[in-house]
Amino acid sequence: MLPLAVSMGDPAGIGPEIIAKSWEARGVRALPAFFAVGNPAAIRAVWHGPVAEITDLADVAGVFADALPVLAVDSGGTVTPGTPDVDGARCALHALELASGLARSGAARALVTGPVSKAQLYGIGFNYPGQTEFVAERFGVARDNAVMMLAGPSLRVVPMTTHVPLAQVSALLTVDLIVAKAHATARGLQRNFGIAAPRLAFAGFNPHAGESGAIGQEEIDVIEPAVALLRDAGIDATGPFAADTMFHLRARERYDAAMCCYHDQALVPLKTLHFDEGVNITLGLPIVRTSPDHGTAFAIAGQDRAEPGAMIAAIAMAGEAAERRAAACRLTP
Amino acid sequence: MLPLAVSMGDPAGIGPEIIAKSWEARGVRALPAFFAVGNPAAIRAVWHGPVAEITDLADVAGVFADALPVLAVDSGGTVTPGTPDVDGARCALHALELASGLARSGAARALVTGPVSKAQLYGIGFNYPGQTEFVAERFGVARDNAVMMLAGPSLRVVPMTTHVPLAQVSALLTVDLIVAKAHATARGLQRNFGIAAPRLAFAGFNPHAGESGAIGQEEIDVIEPAVALLRDAGIDATGPFAADTMFHLRARERYDAAMCCYHDQALVPLKTLHFDEGVNITLGLPIVRTSPDHGTAFAIAGQDRAEPGAMIAAIAMAGEAAERRAAACRLTP
Repeated sequence: MLPLAVSMGDPAGIGPEIIAKSWEARGVRALPAFFAVGNPAAIRAVWHGPVAEITDLADVAGVFADALPVLAVDSGGTVTPGTPDVDGARCALHALELASGLARSGAARALVTGPVSKAQLYGIGFNYPGQTEFVAERFGVARDNAVMMLAGPSLRVVPMTTHVPLAQVSALLTVDLIVAKAHATARGLQRNFGIAAPRLAFAGFNPHAGESGAIGQEEIDVIEPAVALLRDAGIDATGPFAADTMFHLRARERYDAAMCCYHDQALVPLKTLHFDEGVNITLGLPIVRTSPDHGTAFAIAGQDRAEPGAMIAAIAMAGEAAERRAAACRLTP
Repeated sequence: MLPLAVSMGDPAGIGPEIIAKSWEARGVRALPAFFAVGNPAAIRAVWHGPVAEITDLADVAGVFADALPVLAVDSGGTVTPGTPDVDGARCALHALELASGLARSGAARALVTGPVSKAQLYGIGFNYPGQTEFVAERFGVARDNAVMMLAGPSLRVVPMTTHVPLAQVSALLTVDLIVAKAHATARGLQRNFGIAAPRLAFAGFNPHAGESGAIGQEEIDVIEPAVALLRDAGIDATGPFAADTMFHLRARERYDAAMCCYHDQALVPLKTLHFDEGVNITLGLPIVRTSPDHGTAFAIAGQDRAEPGAMIAAIAMAGEAAERRAAACRLTP
């Protein structure tokens, strides 16, 4: 079984610590073998457990039980937890590039990405909205067909628009966008989560989903026609529903993914319920890519205070999804 | 101790049933004495417990232990649970008007309003966005100074704009509006909840609260200046914060009310956490007014399936808030 590649993210953030803590939990949580990609010094600066620098991925399987395998990326500098710098940003980008390449080439079974600082990356010329778009481009996938899904133990959400001003969302929300995101989501739920007939529930854009046009037109003009097209295409699409009625326990049991119009409509319920265990999974890629749904948390880096729950969940989900996809390939004649 | 007035809402909705079930829970939940205002036939159609029609509010205290006191409003028709009609809408409006008047005159200690159908009320000429605005006008309070707060056991939220299209919110969100809503909220938390120095946390409008202007300007142009003015006025106002980081358990402990920019930003986390127990309380009125935070649920009316939790919580909260306000008046020399 091939190992998973885990890019370390910004070496001055909590990435190194949560990767090390995830390795410590490998037995209890039955995690698949993985290796970190980044600066080994960043891990040693915050953790005193065993680190094994590797140069051949074939060594991961033999090493993993006794030490955290690390594929070193030249850092070009020292690491001070909590104090990001240009060298660290370069190291984070190199680690992301290398880990993506290993997944693309088939040397790693899946890609898990640690938290980066967008502000730091922008400072060295990175010009993608986030790691998701970077990875999508590296795999040759158009942005509308790559879907960011946030998944917790009892809820999966897809923000159909992401890091844009809320006042622009109404104009960005088109029938084409919704249909593209829904198809990629349905296929992603089948391939990564083994859900044969995914149920997609669409949130309305306005309060009370617009009350039949009394409080806004986006439902009538855009969401309802898109849902109708999806149903014609055989997808179990329902809604639009009033967003505030979609996220309590009984409501969550009625769908496999909530399709949300904008960032906070998706992220508020997900993080209200699953703040320390949300996983960001990119659907629509030829490989599995996950990430913990939190940032670098520079303020607590190096203080042994970081919660590894989301990283552990991201590694576990990547392993399970990759296994499902491999099994599906074996079944195909 | 004066009784609470509970308007029945639409007689064909679940109002009659949840009021009757609340009366059944009066002992276990230690509810204060209350009386229903509405059509007694609507209660008898869905409940076989003891009903006592009263004409003098002085009789409530003596009756309450053994029967549900009802102050009858002429219905002008029969009641079919689940099938709303014009007569029912008139009855709901008369009940609301009568119960409000009894609270205004001091004959009732507080006002609790049952769920109405806005669509049905609009059909008979009602032209307020909701019961909150109707009640505010009856008490001579300007709309910006009447605040709708939703309160559950672990979260209180204030939507600073309510039932308007989301695309209009950016234009409606002004420094004046935010300051007015915040002052009314702070004073309401003091008077109704006994919180001496209320902590108000403001949500950003855009994803990640705009990331210093990179994803929208509303935080910089409107919310930050309003928060600064409020702090100058001695109010413990903080933010704007990224909305998706405000509603997990640890975050909720840091404030007494989350001040939200729009309907779903407030209602999604509240109903995700407290779907069956959310109370709508109007702050800024000379009396206490609460309401269960749900609708008429015509689809399940008359089937003994309605959850009374939110109505019980609304009655309990009204009683406690009225008691706090009365005690504060007694302390004032």
